[in-house]
Amino acid sequence: MTTRSGRHFLQIPGPTNVPERVLRALSRPTIDHRGPEFASLALDVLDRLKSIFQTAGPVVVYPSSGTGAWEAALVNTLSPGDRVLAFETGHFATLWRDLAVNLGLQVDFVPGDWRHGADPSLVADHLRDDTKAVMVVHNETSTGVRSRIPEVRAAMADHPALLMVDTISSLGSMDYRHDEWGVDVTVGCSQKGLMLPPGLGLNAVSAKALAAREQGRLPRAYWDWGPILQANERGFFPYTPPTNLLYGLQVALDLLLDEGLPNVFARHDRHAEATRRAVRGWGLEVLCADEREYSSSLTAIVVPEPHDADAVRELILDRYDLSLGTGLGRLAGRVFRIGHLGDLNDLTLAGTLAGVQLGLTAAGVPIEKGGLDAALDSLA
Amino acid sequence: MTTRSGRHFLQIPGPTNVPERVLRALSRPTIDHRGPEFASLALDVLDRLKSIFQTAGPVVVYPSSGTGAWEAALVNTLSPGDRVLAFETGHFATLWRDLAVNLGLQVDFVPGDWRHGADPSLVADHLRDDTKAVMVVHNETSTGVRSRIPEVRAAMADHPALLMVDTISSLGSMDYRHDEWGVDVTVGCSQKGLMLPPGLGLNAVSAKALAAREQGRLPRAYWDWGPILQANERGFFPYTPPTNLLYGLQVALDLLLDEGLPNVFARHDRHAEATRRAVRGWGLEVLCADEREYSSSLTAIVVPEPHDADAVRELILDRYDLSLGTGLGRLAGRVFRIGHLGDLNDLTLAGTLAGVQLGLTAAGVPIEKGGLDAALDSLA
Amino acid sequence: MTTRSGRHFLQIPGPTNVPERVLRALSRPTIDHRGPEFASLALDVLDRLKSIFQTAGPVVVYPSSGTGAWEAALVNTLSPGDRVLAFETGHFATLWRDLAVNLGLQVDFVPGDWRHGADPSLVADHLRDDTKAVMVVHNETSTGVRSRIPEVRAAMADHPALLMVDTISSLGSMDYRHDEWGVDVTVGCSQKGLMLPPGLGLNAVSAKALAAREQGRLPRAYWDWGPILQANERGFFPYTPPTNLLYGLQVALDLLLDEGLPNVFARHDRHAEATRRAVRGWGLEVLCADEREYSSSLTAIVVPEPHDADAVRELILDRYDLSLGTGLGRLAGRVFRIGHLGDLNDLTLAGTLAGVQLGLTAAGVPIEKGGLDAALDSLA
Amino acid sequence: MTTRSGRHFLQIPGPTNVPERVLRALSRPTIDHRGPEFASLALDVLDRLKSIFQTAGPVVVYPSSGTGAWEAALVNTLSPGDRVLAFETGHFATLWRDLAVNLGLQVDFVPGDWRHGADPSLVADHLRDDTKAVMVVHNETSTGVRSRIPEVRAAMADHPALLMVDTISSLGSMDYRHDEWGVDVTVGCSQKGLMLPPGLGLNAVSAKALAAREQGRLPRAYWDWGPILQANERGFFPYTPPTNLLYGLQVALDLLLDEGLPNVFARHDRHAEATRRAVRGWGLEVLCADEREYSSSLTAIVVPEPHDADAVRELILDRYDLSLGTGLGRLAGRVFRIGHLGDLNDLTLAGTLAGVQLGLTAAGVPIEKGGLDAALDSLA
Repeated sequence: MTTRSGRHFLQIPGPTNVPERVLRALSRPTIDHRGPEFASLALDVLDRLKSIFQTAGPVVVYPSSGTGAWEAALVNTLSPGDRVLAFETGHFATLWRDLAVNLGLQVDFVPGDWRHGADPSLVADHLRDDTKAVMVVHNETSTGVRSRIPEVRAAMADHPALLMVDTISSLGSMDYRHDEWGVDVTVGCSQKGLMLPPGLGLNAVSAKALAAREQGRLPRAYWDWGPILQANERGFFPYTPPTNLLYGLQVALDLLLDEGLPNVFARHDRHAEATRRAVRGWGLEVLCADEREYSSSLTAIVVPEPHDADAVRELILDRYDLSLGTGLGRLAGRVFRIGHLGDLNDLTLAGTLAGVQLGLTAAGVPIEKGGLDAALDSLA
Repeated sequence: MTTRSGRHFLQIPGPTNVPERVLRALSRPTIDHRGPEFASLALDVLDRLKSIFQTAGPVVVYPSSGTGAWEAALVNTLSPGDRVLAFETGHFATLWRDLAVNLGLQVDFVPGDWRHGADPSLVADHLRDDTKAVMVVHNETSTGVRSRIPEVRAAMADHPALLMVDTISSLGSMDYRHDEWGVDVTVGCSQKGLMLPPGLGLNAVSAKALAAREQGRLPRAYWDWGPILQANERGFFPYTPPTNLLYGLQVALDLLLDEGLPNVFARHDRHAEATRRAVRGWGLEVLCADEREYSSSLTAIVVPEPHDADAVRELILDRYDLSLGTGLGRLAGRVFRIGHLGDLNDLTLAGTLAGVQLGLTAAGVPIEKGGLDAALDSLA
Repeated sequence: MTTRSGRHFLQIPGPTNVPERVLRALSRPTIDHRGPEFASLALDVLDRLKSIFQTAGPVVVYPSSGTGAWEAALVNTLSPGDRVLAFETGHFATLWRDLAVNLGLQVDFVPGDWRHGADPSLVADHLRDDTKAVMVVHNETSTGVRSRIPEVRAAMADHPALLMVDTISSLGSMDYRHDEWGVDVTVGCSQKGLMLPPGLGLNAVSAKALAAREQGRLPRAYWDWGPILQANERGFFPYTPPTNLLYGLQVALDLLLDEGLPNVFARHDRHAEATRRAVRGWGLEVLCADEREYSSSLTAIVVPEPHDADAVRELILDRYDLSLGTGLGRLAGRVFRIGHLGDLNDLTLAGTLAGVQLGLTAAGVPIEKGGLDAALDSLA
Repeated sequence: MTTRSGRHFLQIPGPTNVPERVLRALSRPTIDHRGPEFASLALDVLDRLKSIFQTAGPVVVYPSSGTGAWEAALVNTLSPGDRVLAFETGHFATLWRDLAVNLGLQVDFVPGDWRHGADPSLVADHLRDDTKAVMVVHNETSTGVRSRIPEVRAAMADHPALLMVDTISSLGSMDYRHDEWGVDVTVGCSQKGLMLPPGLGLNAVSAKALAAREQGRLPRAYWDWGPILQANERGFFPYTPPTNLLYGLQVALDLLLDEGLPNVFARHDRHAEATRRAVRGWGLEVLCADEREYSSSLTAIVVPEPHDADAVRELILDRYDLSLGTGLGRLAGRVFRIGHLGDLNDLTLAGTLAGVQLGLTAAGVPIEKGGLDAALDSLA
């Protein structure tokens, strides 16, 4: 690749831009994971992570991707053949379903059109007596659609199933309340709202989920919450933890908590609104079909036929050094996605939207020019 | 903790000292894991990793600890209730056994005294017709004892069981030949001889192991070699890979391959020999009881009673800012371990041995003074 | 200061944004400045620096600011009381004049309106028989006006005075040819087009300037070219050189030469043109009054009365985290400056211009809205 | 150069090992040197630097080497032809003398044998009525000899000459008291006890020196204290300051002041004593001939004829990756120097001394073996 001047615009919906303070923390020398300095680090990050999930309960940190945290949620609480209920909100909901199937679970998968969140009104119909867990993706990264978790929870009424929620692309970006909303296992990871490189999988765990672990008979070892929570009490781990990512996490927590979570959420709401205004200003369509379900961390944009969304995306990468998210699964070629989450400010968003506007034009997609201006008006 | 002047001596048997070139690589901005720059990175490291295992076959890279790579070896190839043979060479062999049991396997565990490697002469006796796999730790990190893998393999004769070998603390430090020795799954990780922070688990996989995967019925998803190897062909991963650790891996491979593996191994042999000379010079005992089985990456030293090895270790950390390995499991309080692997040179080893000599003296352990001198003579 | 999300936009006319590869190079461990590794580094950067000045002669590198390089040019070649000719192109030309006066030189200072470059047609009139040097600022950083050096040189005809040119904010950004244009001493520094932090002052030196050094009687020691050039031959320095900035310089040279100087210059021309289109689109005025003299590295924008340019600038910094250049000297409060030099790309420029547009509006400066669009059209 | 494993031992008497926290600070993005964030940084470091000099007066920070700070001390206070008194304590005292001569001063240079400090008993004899300044090197970096500044000052009695002291290799390592000892200008730099890369020159300035500036007629501009001190009041500089080194300085001050200066000095005394014990244990000679004048930051060791000290040094670098200081000036080939200043601890010193012992032996220099043991006994 030829040398390119200037900073790359990484505006996929994760991994997100890692703040330079976090990047530098990653390069601190690795220390003894059994020594006192490590314990002090671990106790601090494990404690402060709770506030990101808005929980008083424990958060389990894995050296893994988010996919690992999906697997952990299931193998800790369920038994072979257990029935679970899931909603086809998009590509990642489908992958989580596939993972559950591979682990030997029986998944009732409520079909969806990839433009709406999980429909709370369908929950009661699909819950069966033997349903052991309900799996919902809070913010579907492939579509930019947010599911209304409190309504899903309400629809479960007093059914004993566990509620498991994937917050991979919403955690630390959009308001999410593990305890208040009655979630049992929340699945997260490092490379989105936490502004870290990939490499950490996260589970926030309710008391009910911990109790379910006593019954769960799926084979588990690496993912087992038990030994991890026990060792965590003194700031240690049952196997070697990812020290340098924890350095980064410590700084990322500083940044998020210094800004203040309500401010962080408001910032994401504001950038998402400006992005949607740009889309409409271009005369294009936001994929998300229900304004109650707009994602504040990413926006998927429908590229009108016969234009190929990936060709647009590649032109933009090639010409403007801006990385956008591809259309996944059944959306391949039909949408591209703008990530506006993590370490972001108005002018980087403006540059991003300028790049999209320039790229759509260069690709010959018929757009109106007012998109960027509409976004700036919204930001002003 | 009060500010301490000078560089910390991290001489545990892993995580090891991460070279500053690798540390700086970790702080490169995270990129799109679906873009061309990432693919080029991944194809390079996946290819060059093979030479570290001395294999022509694939190496699977997980965002995980080494424990995850243990689990991966088993869940990819075995079925619930399968019988495997393992050897009690020390703490980590025992943990791997426990993990297999947790996954629902039936483990024949050949007892050991934690001072010897797996005894090749016992293999034939313990192999049963239905043994599906033999699990051996190449270099037992808790004891500093090396198992003689080629002899174990020879003792298996033409038994169809898979041979699985843990090289967590030998990979990239001690001569190890996945293909030539006939190993089916080699388990490794990032934070020892590869001179990286923790966060990568590794499996080198033989054709026979890949074939076994077709039969294995243990539930698997995250660890499944299949989708990973398929995606790896074009430089991608089925879930978000640990980008920044791969940056580091690329530099670590440069360093190891520039030095040349034979030189790397010779360097470790030389430092291990100097360390043992020091131990004998102090009138102390190396834990490893068979000189054919000395580890070249770490040395466990027996602390004479009634002295507590951990008290010595803590004094050394406190007074000399030198981290040594603790005694694990049944060796707690009886030994400490010096890691002499990874990014190491003569003078850092000399400083380390000076710290041990000073610390033993300060702790009141009766030693002769000639240890450090004997080591220097050996290095000269 | 409260924590701010996202990357700061540093769009002053220097220091410029330091590429992350350069930043990481700065953090390499400092080495022995008298050892072979250092010599190899120094010989490389001293050689490749020549191409940036487009000279075959030597380039002297000082641990200093650009001001130091101004002083070096004078004390190496002149004697107390010598007469020199200079042009009042703006604040920095005035400061260089002041420095010359402080060193005991007699300066004929041709007045200027701070909107034009040095007027070649006035050179002959002001050159006197005893004029020893002509001092010109190639790119006046306070005004964004470029002086036409070849025409100045031509106007000097065969007068024996030395030609000294300040390229502080043009070197590595705008076409500049030390040899071809017949310049005797070119003054540069690290923190602009070279994309480094401040800390290096530079002199490119002609044979004629070296000969003048033999006669110059201004006291000199630190700045003396003689011992430096002598030590440089083997890759050393007469006093401790700024090792870590040289690490950065090595990478910066890689970046500039990989991109190719003609491409670098064309990029700056293009970004400057887009910026001027924005200014006109807003209905505002570029300070530079002669289109032949537009700077390609920065643009000074006149803020219409009664608005205070600094109030606008501060609002923009406060609200949009964008640093712009202040009005200096007689331009205080009347202009602000956009730096568009160094490590820059289209989308960062777009974000910058968006910030200016938003800020002008927020400050109540009456502008037309078409500025950003005009810039994007120009970039497309 | 072939890739070398392990960390380089940089034990020259400066540049010293830069702590990794400082190295990482160097890689922070460069900011606007005219903005509020910069002012806050500058005010902090300028204030805390005073405590390192043990002065209540101002400290001037230059982008320069230490040589620049030598020049600054002279050009700010003296006039052409002024008479100054200096002492030939070694290579650097001689270079400072040469610099003064080059600037047009008249230097009375008291001869010395390069094994003693400035002799206080000779001060009165050499002070003449028109002597304007006395120049003394506190810690002669070429010899490892410390001059007794309070006794020199006392010997000056009430003579009005300024006292100028070079603390380049003692500042931040050895007890030094600008105010209490009555020094007028103290010269320092970044790359020794301050544990930074080279690039900062320092002058601590007394009220008397500031008054002398009003009379001094040596030409000055870059080095002029006046505009610098004026701009410093609000946290700014009259020309672009070396931002990234100031980031490093801020961290270095944290480290030194957290450890506490008395502890820092005691640590250096202890390491120097251990080093001298090693030298004597080898049966070799410390160059410094007066035990009242031992340097605590470096030790020069006499290599017995006919052995060439540089050959020993090169062998040690080549074989053990340990950089030692060369013999300078008239000591070339006769001594090598061990730097034991800056970011150092017992075990790094032990490794260094091990390397020297191994290298001397390998080079065939006849030594006794007890050097390292004697040093360890001293440290214990």
